[in-house]
Amino acid sequence: MAIIVQKFGGTSVGSIEKIKNVARKVKARADQGNKMVVVLSAMAGVTDKLIALAKEVSPEPDAREMDVLLATGEQQSVALFCIAARQMGLPAHSLLGFQAAILTDNVFGKARIKDVEAQRISEMLDQGQVVVVAGFQGLDWDSGDVTTLGRGGSDTTAVALAAAIKADVCEIFTDVDGVYTTDPNIVPQARKLAAISYDEMLEMASLGAKVLEIRSVAFAKQFGVKIHVRSTFTDQEGTMVVSEEQITEKLVVSGVAYNKNEARITIKGVVDQPGVASKVFTPIGAANIVVDVIIQNTSEDGKTDISFTVPKTDYDQAMRVVQATAKELGAKQVIGDPNVAKVSIIGTGMRNHAGVATKMFQVLAGEGINIETINTSEIKISCVIKEKYTELAVRALHEAFHLAGDAPKAEDLS
Amino acid sequence: MAIIVQKFGGTSVGSIEKIKNVARKVKARADQGNKMVVVLSAMAGVTDKLIALAKEVSPEPDAREMDVLLATGEQQSVALFCIAARQMGLPAHSLLGFQAAILTDNVFGKARIKDVEAQRISEMLDQGQVVVVAGFQGLDWDSGDVTTLGRGGSDTTAVALAAAIKADVCEIFTDVDGVYTTDPNIVPQARKLAAISYDEMLEMASLGAKVLEIRSVAFAKQFGVKIHVRSTFTDQEGTMVVSEEQITEKLVVSGVAYNKNEARITIKGVVDQPGVASKVFTPIGAANIVVDVIIQNTSEDGKTDISFTVPKTDYDQAMRVVQATAKELGAKQVIGDPNVAKVSIIGTGMRNHAGVATKMFQVLAGEGINIETINTSEIKISCVIKEKYTELAVRALHEAFHLAGDAPKAEDLS
Repeated sequence: MAIIVQKFGGTSVGSIEKIKNVARKVKARADQGNKMVVVLSAMAGVTDKLIALAKEVSPEPDAREMDVLLATGEQQSVALFCIAARQMGLPAHSLLGFQAAILTDNVFGKARIKDVEAQRISEMLDQGQVVVVAGFQGLDWDSGDVTTLGRGGSDTTAVALAAAIKADVCEIFTDVDGVYTTDPNIVPQARKLAAISYDEMLEMASLGAKVLEIRSVAFAKQFGVKIHVRSTFTDQEGTMVVSEEQITEKLVVSGVAYNKNEARITIKGVVDQPGVASKVFTPIGAANIVVDVIIQNTSEDGKTDISFTVPKTDYDQAMRVVQATAKELGAKQVIGDPNVAKVSIIGTGMRNHAGVATKMFQVLAGEGINIETINTSEIKISCVIKEKYTELAVRALHEAFHLAGDAPKAEDLS
Repeated sequence: MAIIVQKFGGTSVGSIEKIKNVARKVKARADQGNKMVVVLSAMAGVTDKLIALAKEVSPEPDAREMDVLLATGEQQSVALFCIAARQMGLPAHSLLGFQAAILTDNVFGKARIKDVEAQRISEMLDQGQVVVVAGFQGLDWDSGDVTTLGRGGSDTTAVALAAAIKADVCEIFTDVDGVYTTDPNIVPQARKLAAISYDEMLEMASLGAKVLEIRSVAFAKQFGVKIHVRSTFTDQEGTMVVSEEQITEKLVVSGVAYNKNEARITIKGVVDQPGVASKVFTPIGAANIVVDVIIQNTSEDGKTDISFTVPKTDYDQAMRVVQATAKELGAKQVIGDPNVAKVSIIGTGMRNHAGVATKMFQVLAGEGINIETINTSEIKISCVIKEKYTELAVRALHEAFHLAGDAPKAEDLS
């Protein structure tokens, strides 16, 4: 008998028939004697409809009231789910954010969970009830206001609950059946990983592999919650997201990620003195543009070049901001390229293995792909390249690092 | 400066444009310096859609979860309203049932309000905020469960809040502009009443004049809350529902009500002994059929006839139940008529004026209308007649009691 948290996303509960299907899945596990907590998102499309409705009322809807509005989506899912589950004889009880005591700060629209008072849920589980919690929503304990956690927030709800009730596993059900070595749409031979570490998953998520919400992974890492990413529509095992120590099959490189929503901007010939970077990036931040890879080359004649990437969608606005700054700073030139992509290899094995970066550069060079910018972390190497080479680069790297089922184990290389 | 509770029904907030219109109305009163509490129903049609969705999941949806589901309707209205109001510069804050501390019993689907802890609302009003409360919903304080008050429950929410915060008036906005002496569809000369007593309104409501939810009137009477029933779509004064003492223009008869959803059943020749009525009505109640007017004639030869009315929609089922009972009791015969209606005159003035009943019977006789059953209370006389005579009876009574603008005052007759 285990304590299991199961989270189902919007596509998994996107219709009455799907809700019934999910209820059957939960019942099967409950019937085996497990203590079950279920976390649900809003039915697919509902949140977008509510946002559209609010925008119809006001172009800038009040943030507090927006959260009151959006919280209804998950409230409807849990109610409908419990109606379906009870019809099947499963003693399901819904809990909303305030009832589950999911306590957050007061940042409407992207509140952070500060605490979960799990006593009530634990008592309900002991009484044999299936506890069904509305994802995505919380309660600001100071004001008693309804808050929401932002897009993908239900993943965080599930992980936070799993931590609070000391669940054996937090199963995140989604419309893909696990975490793959790369996008199977690009590389059909991509392999589903049996396990991946929190750190690798964080890099994958931040690079655009949209399987798990990034904050939920950070939360899981912090509290040691085992996540199992799997498909709602099959019974196959998915991918475990766990601590590095819990992974037996250690790979040097676990995956190849890419992100096409990138544009590169370079300011050439700025005076290299303290405070320059701050002067460049403060106005960009003020314009609510998120800057990703930042590279500053070493100085030549007291002048330097600063390159960085921004989301492609913010490129035009970012260029305007940067051109104004460049004028102020007396920089030589601003150049940009809206047609770039970022390709990355990720793997905790890199920590102990030299030559991984070199191999990546060789592979890209071998395909005639020029690297515009390089950025590395302990477990990740990212290269900014021309967007049109993305698929070519991903396929070449996936093959070169033997990710298609014959990936070299870390021990083979040590 | 006054403390005002305003309640708007589903038709009044049935679209984004209507919600904005309501926000403008509230703002006009707030701008005059009044402290405003607004209670909203779900947008017209939303509750029915949610019920249909639940029925799609299960023919008998779990009552607890049904309330969780239905509560989202009002939650969406208050959020959208506050977004609209804030866009206009009005400091509106929504409160859900649990936040407004509307404490109920645990009868899901038709919970009764037990208490309202108004301190938070009073504080918010003192801070100059416009408090916008989701109608229809409450919180079972023992379990922390979401409850709903049943159809028309938002009226009760408004009156309960008005009582708790000692509001000067509770304005119920609806799609009619007040309480009329009778249905203007039948009698075009029907007059809008400036005022009506709680007791009269209770009789009107229970007889099918669907302006105010009956429990809200009982609540208002209990706590002395002044209700003002008026139209959302005009600025005209509507009808005040107040205590008898507060009405200056006292009428003998205030209105003529009717209800066509009636069917009459008579059991003839049952033995007149203790327990017979109980034996007849217990199985009808068990079949969830609400019995209205019950008449038992005096005994002849130890046998009696029992007549009663049931909703027309329950007639066939009621006949089957009663025929079975009649067999057991050895009654002579069961006769029924599904085509009857109930016509009533209502007025607190009747208490002190003889001859009102006589006049009613004369008026009906004068039109050749046979009275099948008579039932009276202190302030109401109801006659069951053939349904086809309903309009004729209502018009004749309305004219005979001079309700079209020239109604006799009680003092003129005393």
